Amino acid sequence: AGHGARKMEDYGRFLALLASSLLVGFVSVILSLVWVFHYREGLSWDGSPAEFNWHPVLIITGFVFIQGIAIIVYRLPWTWKCSKLLMKFIHAGLNTIAMILAIVSMVAVFDFHNAKNIPNMYSLHSWIGLTAVIFYSLQLFLGFAVFLLPFAPVHLRAALMPIHVYSGLTIFATVIATALMGITEKLLFALKNPEYSASPPEATFVNCLGLLLVIFGSLILWMASRPHWKRPPAENAKILRPIGATPEGTEVESTMTNSSNADKSDLRSNTEAARKQNTKFDEAGQRSTM
Amino acid sequence: AGHGARKMEDYGRFLALLASSLLVGFVSVILSLVWVFHYREGLSWDGSPAEFNWHPVLIITGFVFIQGIAIIVYRLPWTWKCSKLLMKFIHAGLNTIAMILAIVSMVAVFDFHNAKNIPNMYSLHSWIGLTAVIFYSLQLFLGFAVFLLPFAPVHLRAALMPIHVYSGLTIFATVIATALMGITEKLLFALKNPEYSASPPEATFVNCLGLLLVIFGSLILWMASRPHWKRPPAENAKILRPIGATPEGTEVESTMTNSSNADKSDLRSNTEAARKQNTKFDEAGQRSTM
Repeated sequence: AGHGARKMEDYGRFLALLASSLLVGFVSVILSLVWVFHYREGLSWDGSPAEFNWHPVLIITGFVFIQGIAIIVYRLPWTWKCSKLLMKFIHAGLNTIAMILAIVSMVAVFDFHNAKNIPNMYSLHSWIGLTAVIFYSLQLFLGFAVFLLPFAPVHLRAALMPIHVYSGLTIFATVIATALMGITEKLLFALKNPEYSASPPEATFVNCLGLLLVIFGSLILWMASRPHWKRPPAENAKILRPIGATPEGTEVESTMTNSSNADKSDLRSNTEAARKQNTKFDEAGQRSTM
Repeated sequence: AGHGARKMEDYGRFLALLASSLLVGFVSVILSLVWVFHYREGLSWDGSPAEFNWHPVLIITGFVFIQGIAIIVYRLPWTWKCSKLLMKFIHAGLNTIAMILAIVSMVAVFDFHNAKNIPNMYSLHSWIGLTAVIFYSLQLFLGFAVFLLPFAPVHLRAALMPIHVYSGLTIFATVIATALMGITEKLLFALKNPEYSASPPEATFVNCLGLLLVIFGSLILWMASRPHWKRPPAENAKILRPIGATPEGTEVESTMTNSSNADKSDLRSNTEAARKQNTKFDEAGQRSTM
């Protein structure tokens, strides 16, 4: 009963974090719209600043919010009954939508720059942003070829999975860093009389949007990096199971009953250790066999 | 023999990454000095722009380079013979140096702003930068109180260790993002005739410095997040050892001989799984008992 209560408590903590990330991400998208409609020129596609405005809106919607959801989609406990293949399609689909929105948002900037004879690709923001889009496309292409198509051998999937996870999280963090640079640039360019340094309402408003992006990124990275919130390994992958785990067990807690030499007075950390042991194995290749 | 060869290969890979990070970090520090001495007003402490210049130099030296080294100092295999306590002092000491340099670098900016009647704390860079310094100080204080002083109980250390690791890496990434915003601000402020958008040599030079900071951060985060490069658990912490591990074993590969039901045709990923199993256990509390 104590174990079940801890499990529910952990589930509740996951839901609270998920709700917070969705809220923070959603509010960020709304604030980006308020920014361009209330403080700026709105949205259009005519070479005017209103065309540029698609850039922050689409980046925050697609490259930050949707990418963030795509990262944690395997963590949602109610999807663990769904086939892994379905979840891969959802993961790949959300990332594809994010990539398309990021590319459209870049086209908006190039179009606006060309209409106004502003040079392209001179700023650090543009250098790192373009690099992130290129790596993101590569990641999507390689992920599709290795993990979604049925051709890659298990050992290749196992070898590439940690790199895929690391690249995904690093690109996500880099995208948020690039968004913060973009906000800095735009406020310095757009705010004249009063300037950015005079802290007009728009400056404070958009600074808060920047803070929300950092909070959103931190929440997603926390959820993505907790081993005990991973999707449990499936039946057909028991070949790599550790000694001490029941071969049939898909419950991550299944090793707990075998931990007879553990310190019973500290059941909680022992349970977590057992869970981590099991989920960790998964990382070495099981996940990628599904 | 094959196992030993793989171990050496893995060690070689670690050394190559370590050498790359040290090189990229060192070159970043040099480039920051070239920036302020060749392109800008040099260094001084007189309220002039030369006082401001301490800001990028000390941030890149302390808050990026030294913090990065502090993060991976437990990973250096030749320190695994040293006591854990000594390594904790080195980790805490490097982070203290980084914090002092970050604070001095902030004083330089406030001093410069006040001398020139420029407002403080209006930009997103300043908001996120100050937040990062506050969280960094908290992290250092809590880390000292919980993991260095001998008073905290094992279960508290075990519960806080994942949070300590996550906060440390997130703050580090945030510091690099803040540095990129700072570079963007400074180039937009300082470059007039030709402007930033005309890509004068200084703009290209400092953009490259920004790229190096991203590469440095990515290398450190990769090294810090590989479970098989962790310091192996010590003798006195065998209480939480998994079934299948020899109680005496401090070698992380010690479970390998017990993996009798594993797929022998894929020895490599199995070895990695065993190593991860062992090092993962450690994370649940062993490390923090030392």
